[in-house]
Amino acid sequence: MNAPLSAPLLPDVQPRPLPADALAALQARFQARCSTALAVREQHGRDESAYTHIPPPAAVVFAESTADVADALRIAAQWRVPVIPFGVGSSLEGHLLAVQGGISLDVSRMNQVLAVRPEDLTATVQPGVTRKQLNEAIKHLGLFFPIDPGADASIGGMAATRASGTNAVRYGTMRENVLALEVVTANGEVVRTGTHARKSSAGYDLTRLFVGSEGTLGVMTEITVRLYPLPEAISAAICSFPSVEAAVRTTIAIIQMGIPIARCELLDARTVRAVNAHSKLGLREEPMLLMEFHGSPSGVQEQAEMVQAIADEHGGQAFEWATTPEERTRLWTARHNAYFAGVQSRPGCRAITTDACVPISRLADNVLAAVAEADAAGIPYFMVGHVGDGNFHMGYLIDPDDMAERAAAERLNQALVERALASGGTCTGEHGVGLHKMDFLRAEAGDGALALMRAIKAALDPHDILNPGKIVAR
Amino acid sequence: MNAPLSAPLLPDVQPRPLPADALAALQARFQARCSTALAVREQHGRDESAYTHIPPPAAVVFAESTADVADALRIAAQWRVPVIPFGVGSSLEGHLLAVQGGISLDVSRMNQVLAVRPEDLTATVQPGVTRKQLNEAIKHLGLFFPIDPGADASIGGMAATRASGTNAVRYGTMRENVLALEVVTANGEVVRTGTHARKSSAGYDLTRLFVGSEGTLGVMTEITVRLYPLPEAISAAICSFPSVEAAVRTTIAIIQMGIPIARCELLDARTVRAVNAHSKLGLREEPMLLMEFHGSPSGVQEQAEMVQAIADEHGGQAFEWATTPEERTRLWTARHNAYFAGVQSRPGCRAITTDACVPISRLADNVLAAVAEADAAGIPYFMVGHVGDGNFHMGYLIDPDDMAERAAAERLNQALVERALASGGTCTGEHGVGLHKMDFLRAEAGDGALALMRAIKAALDPHDILNPGKIVAR
Repeated sequence: MNAPLSAPLLPDVQPRPLPADALAALQARFQARCSTALAVREQHGRDESAYTHIPPPAAVVFAESTADVADALRIAAQWRVPVIPFGVGSSLEGHLLAVQGGISLDVSRMNQVLAVRPEDLTATVQPGVTRKQLNEAIKHLGLFFPIDPGADASIGGMAATRASGTNAVRYGTMRENVLALEVVTANGEVVRTGTHARKSSAGYDLTRLFVGSEGTLGVMTEITVRLYPLPEAISAAICSFPSVEAAVRTTIAIIQMGIPIARCELLDARTVRAVNAHSKLGLREEPMLLMEFHGSPSGVQEQAEMVQAIADEHGGQAFEWATTPEERTRLWTARHNAYFAGVQSRPGCRAITTDACVPISRLADNVLAAVAEADAAGIPYFMVGHVGDGNFHMGYLIDPDDMAERAAAERLNQALVERALASGGTCTGEHGVGLHKMDFLRAEAGDGALALMRAIKAALDPHDILNPGKIVAR
Repeated sequence: MNAPLSAPLLPDVQPRPLPADALAALQARFQARCSTALAVREQHGRDESAYTHIPPPAAVVFAESTADVADALRIAAQWRVPVIPFGVGSSLEGHLLAVQGGISLDVSRMNQVLAVRPEDLTATVQPGVTRKQLNEAIKHLGLFFPIDPGADASIGGMAATRASGTNAVRYGTMRENVLALEVVTANGEVVRTGTHARKSSAGYDLTRLFVGSEGTLGVMTEITVRLYPLPEAISAAICSFPSVEAAVRTTIAIIQMGIPIARCELLDARTVRAVNAHSKLGLREEPMLLMEFHGSPSGVQEQAEMVQAIADEHGGQAFEWATTPEERTRLWTARHNAYFAGVQSRPGCRAITTDACVPISRLADNVLAAVAEADAAGIPYFMVGHVGDGNFHMGYLIDPDDMAERAAAERLNQALVERALASGGTCTGEHGVGLHKMDFLRAEAGDGALALMRAIKAALDPHDILNPGKIVAR
């Protein structure tokens, strides 16, 4: 660790004034699709992070095509106006907040599935297509797109944050599943990265440089992703455990044995309680693993039997099968709603969500220490984890106006991240850095790697107009 | 395609003089480990590419530690001396050739497996460790490292070229299997990228920027890779086909059905003949698929039965099992020797090897057209393919001193690449760009993406000392 950790309670807010000429140029080009209405700006000036009271962008431009994005960026470049790409607004880390003013570039109307190539198992979409929309569009072909953050996020936002979700343990993250991009650069030029081939050694991996760059290096306008055949057989199971530790140790054994489990999610007892209240499920209010197996009927059967045996060794109880698609959907919908169920369990709260991801051998001690510290601090929380990946989330439920509570939650977050980094892990497995994790990134990457990131940012965005003040800005 | 293709028959060779002060500084620091002996320089001035007659580097420095690499780069930076990292010299595209002079930085003595973490399924190695050496070191733990280019390449070289091999269809390439790096930058600074967590959203993906950068952005000094549990059951099979087309169509059906085949390799009849001659195998001299299945005993059985049924539908004959480990090893050794068997089939020749990778739906027409064109041109060749990935290699066997033959082979290569790019594919699936594919890269990436690559190169290596004249130099 190269720098002391100090997660910011409040970000640096230094809005640049929007030049009147810039606004006039945007209005001339976009007419009614350039809005300065307060309600529109405010809707684009918040996300699912715990930050409040940050001024909204000066204007919102609704792009409907790559040409729109290119023109917006050319105008922005001319007057040095910050541009923040906006999909559905489900960011958790303040990515979308206009800390340096400028415009929000809303791409949600760019929501066409441009091509589906079932024979190649790929699709090309515009950035505003959401993951559920894509899955609806390909279901009849017997295909699916596995990346599933809790929210029905846009594919553009998911690529920008290198998102993952519950299927990543088997299918990888956006890092592994984006093949090619069309991107508009800081000077308004349209470039293409990658190809539709499965693999390539052709030059620098620009695709993976843009994936996870959170709108700070370019604006994605087309995204080509990998698809997968719907498994012949799918089987879900839940299993309760006497402790979080027993559930985590079961997971570790599953991964180390190389069982190709498709999903392996942990919910602690508090979270099961919140999910029960939110989704009327009647689950045992104990630590629980929610698992899924994909394959042939006999392969799924075999995997599940191996996992059940491992769970038994760790005191797993009430191993239950979700035998019908409806039952499976009900369980996974509940899991995807865990975040909202957690937040709703304390009216008026916001969640400060941690996102550490550690090597699997360190998962148990990291999770247990985080839970113990949160219990000791007396802050309400929920805890879920994509534990097959070593990724877990504590959601500290705070009153956003209570600075003492916020500070206490940030101290918990900081201790959790310090432990994750000391374990060889990362401060963020899937949510991204945004505003909230900039100090954590500096500690994780070290000054040397951060200097390289800044050199790349300066090379690709010399006037610092692309989502400025984020990721590498501290 | 933004530029006409014209694969260079001869690269631009413009050696920069090595300043006497630079050589003196290197000799003072490295003593006998800085060699100017002609034999040593010549050994470091060639690779497996078809380029000959390029002057060797001015000196060779043998690094034994990260500190050695850092000092060599600091000295090189001071006097603007080109530095070419060197592993085992198995590059196929001229990556190692000293077209601008300078020094070869031999890291083959950095050959320690620094750590193996069986519980996390990771290992950290120095760049000179070869893939076979790593696999020997972890075999007793029931683990393996799947990436297997034909040669026993160094892990550093494999990371630098984003290598893959026969297992990539199931396990991915170096892109998916490098978790973290230690890299020395152009100014001699030591930086770390990535963590030991399975996934991360922490900032720009520097790890994947260095993977595939072919020594032009930094010199890797530690590489952390993913390992896999040795499958409980492994089964290999060969199947002969009446035509290359039938073999390719069988492959396409296997992939589209989502069968998790671990290896799926095509050899055409000529190559089987060369392999028979080289490895005394007695295989039927017809187009052949060589396949492998990994999993549980019943899972392997099930996969193999499905594949056999698909092969039957496409006229596959003589489906044969390699039932013992010895038999399997014999077959795969023969496959890995196909390149050398092909080259030996024409004494004194060099191979100009193509490396296109296309979407699987376009594999049959791309392969068939390439074979037809080579047959029509009358140039001897071999043909092998990692067809499960859509990646195939034609090896045109040329007399390196016969410029007309070389030009004819390059014309075949160019037509093949043009077709691959028009099919949505890439000019290089796994060998990299080096000297030989720079014009192809420009055509594939387009001027916009190439400009971004050059901006990154300039930002990270402002004095152009890291393997200059390669990848983005044309």
